[in-house]
Amino acid sequence: DVSFDPKEHQHLRYNPLRDSWVLVSAHRMKRPWAGQVERPPEEHIPRYDPNNPLCPGNKRANGKGNPDYDSTFVFENDFPALQPDAPDPGSDQDPLFQSKAARGVCKVMCFHPWSDVTLPLMKKEEVVNVIDKWAELVEELGTIYPWVQIFENKGAMMGCSNPHPHCQVWASNFLPNEPALSDRCQRAYYQKHGEPMLLQYAKREAEKKRAKKWFSSSASSALPSVNVVLPGLAAIMKRLLTKYDNLFEVSFPYSMGWHGAPTGPYLKEDNSHWQLHAHYYPPLLRSATVKKFMVGYEMLAQEQRDLTPEQAAEKLRNLPEEHYKTR
Amino acid sequence: DVSFDPKEHQHLRYNPLRDSWVLVSAHRMKRPWAGQVERPPEEHIPRYDPNNPLCPGNKRANGKGNPDYDSTFVFENDFPALQPDAPDPGSDQDPLFQSKAARGVCKVMCFHPWSDVTLPLMKKEEVVNVIDKWAELVEELGTIYPWVQIFENKGAMMGCSNPHPHCQVWASNFLPNEPALSDRCQRAYYQKHGEPMLLQYAKREAEKKRAKKWFSSSASSALPSVNVVLPGLAAIMKRLLTKYDNLFEVSFPYSMGWHGAPTGPYLKEDNSHWQLHAHYYPPLLRSATVKKFMVGYEMLAQEQRDLTPEQAAEKLRNLPEEHYKTR
Ligand SMILES: O=P(O)(O)O[C@H]1O[C@H](CO)[C@@H](O)[C@H](O)[C@H]1O
Ligand SMILES: O=P(O)(O)O[C@H]1O[C@H](CO)[C@@H](O)[C@H](O)[C@H]1O
Repeated sequence: DVSFDPKEHQHLRYNPLRDSWVLVSAHRMKRPWAGQVERPPEEHIPRYDPNNPLCPGNKRANGKGNPDYDSTFVFENDFPALQPDAPDPGSDQDPLFQSKAARGVCKVMCFHPWSDVTLPLMKKEEVVNVIDKWAELVEELGTIYPWVQIFENKGAMMGCSNPHPHCQVWASNFLPNEPALSDRCQRAYYQKHGEPMLLQYAKREAEKKRAKKWFSSSASSALPSVNVVLPGLAAIMKRLLTKYDNLFEVSFPYSMGWHGAPTGPYLKEDNSHWQLHAHYYPPLLRSATVKKFMVGYEMLAQEQRDLTPEQAAEKLRNLPEEHYKTR
Repeated sequence: DVSFDPKEHQHLRYNPLRDSWVLVSAHRMKRPWAGQVERPPEEHIPRYDPNNPLCPGNKRANGKGNPDYDSTFVFENDFPALQPDAPDPGSDQDPLFQSKAARGVCKVMCFHPWSDVTLPLMKKEEVVNVIDKWAELVEELGTIYPWVQIFENKGAMMGCSNPHPHCQVWASNFLPNEPALSDRCQRAYYQKHGEPMLLQYAKREAEKKRAKKWFSSSASSALPSVNVVLPGLAAIMKRLLTKYDNLFEVSFPYSMGWHGAPTGPYLKEDNSHWQLHAHYYPPLLRSATVKKFMVGYEMLAQEQRDLTPEQAAEKLRNLPEEHYKTR
């Protein structure tokens, strides 16, 4: 009998945050790639572009002007997917054709006045300002809305249509599918084990010296505690993102976002089972221009990854801590 | 009070096959697109390429030669994500770090000896041959495996790395997440209503003259009956795919696949709640080169679409039935 080697033998891993399984087939990395090659991320972005609606002092699509901001800057999305006053669709009596009202707000938050910096290249204090603003927005919008989704689509490959460093904040009158699932999983774990799932996860992982990147196609970096001090979080983020950039020596694309306990009416409930955490979803697999396609099998059957989480974590661990652009 | 207009006002729609909700924000189509533009699908593919491992008579990566096939041709994937004999990872006792054995087979199926045809351009009898072969493969692999996933990634944009018309067949010793979810939803519906969900859905939709494309980011075309005669199915497929191609007058990319009742050990169970159906996931939104990115909000919170299913269905309905290449 051959003994099990995760790099050679496909297997399933459990993702406790989604109560689902991921197919890990690391031996697939050996197959040659003859498919689509992406354009590498753009590297020459001007610090100020008079036509970029996100730069300080410029006009946006709706005619409004940006202030001459010198730190973060938040404004209402000019093409919001969620608006505060959409009328109710009125429900079909048929259980198969249900619809519901969706209300909310969509904001855009610029991280910095300059277009040619990204989070890993910003000063730590500047990243602290970003985190401070995130906390402020969640607090403000969370008084009303049950869910405030902060997310960053970084790079054209991840659907980002403006190179200026920014994220989005979509607050909704409903708890979206993903956090609803994660809420159920964390609650069930807490009821059974008496401690938040992700805290136990972080502890066990440290004990086992297991790789940080276990779940799914992403790193789910569980923060050590909700009370993590902000400069500590800024340093962690800068370190992770510097390593991402160093991996292929390009401005690394990703989608990321925060998951914390639900807000609005949920603020009155016991949310001890929740642990604030971030998800990072990087699209690249083999190089700056070859991504992992999550397509047929992944959409129809189950997530599949071509690299074990341990292999991915080891690659990141072995990369320098200093950014390739400032070395 | 403004009255509700699905094209103007965002709302949520229920997807009964996944027991989840989709955010529909059709007014977002008005925003200008300044983001990534894809290369248009390749149009000049040689009928026979001596270096293409999928063409009749050619050698593949593992040194094996293809026969001089003149209809469909099935072979084992040379870089399979699932192999029949992978050793068991052995389970961690910790509920947070579970893993399981994954075993199976991955096959590739060529639809036609020529590289320059696609399903909509094939003769109806040729499409019937493809469907026949699908049925044969499900029957064969389904004697052992609980799930046989037939799927086609079409076009480089959907991760397909070979332009020769083909699909894949991945059979596994486990029921993957997506069919497991859909199994639960269909079963619950059947228990409550005494008829398969998708049959009732098709009936109600016909009654309501509702659009066919209701769910998610895809069309879930529920077949009228499991006993649909094969030439009928071939004609439906050809018609749908011809309209897809006609939409932007390119060989339209998509991922598609079949969901039928589970097999293997499940063959002994009562599967009356199941209705065989196909899912088609097209990536394009605005043109042949601008796709809908399912990124930050979609990955972290909830699926969001920029077009109502009725708008999409209407567009397809109004397109000619004859393929733009043969007109
Ligand atoms: O056709 P291939 O080369 O096996 O691979 C393609 O389909 C697979 C199944 O959906 C995906 O996992 C790959 O990312 C994609 O490139
Ligand atoms: O940043 P934008 O232009 O609002 O849009 C981007 O992020 C949204 C939220 O993830 C997606 O729905 C869009 O497909 C993507 O292009």
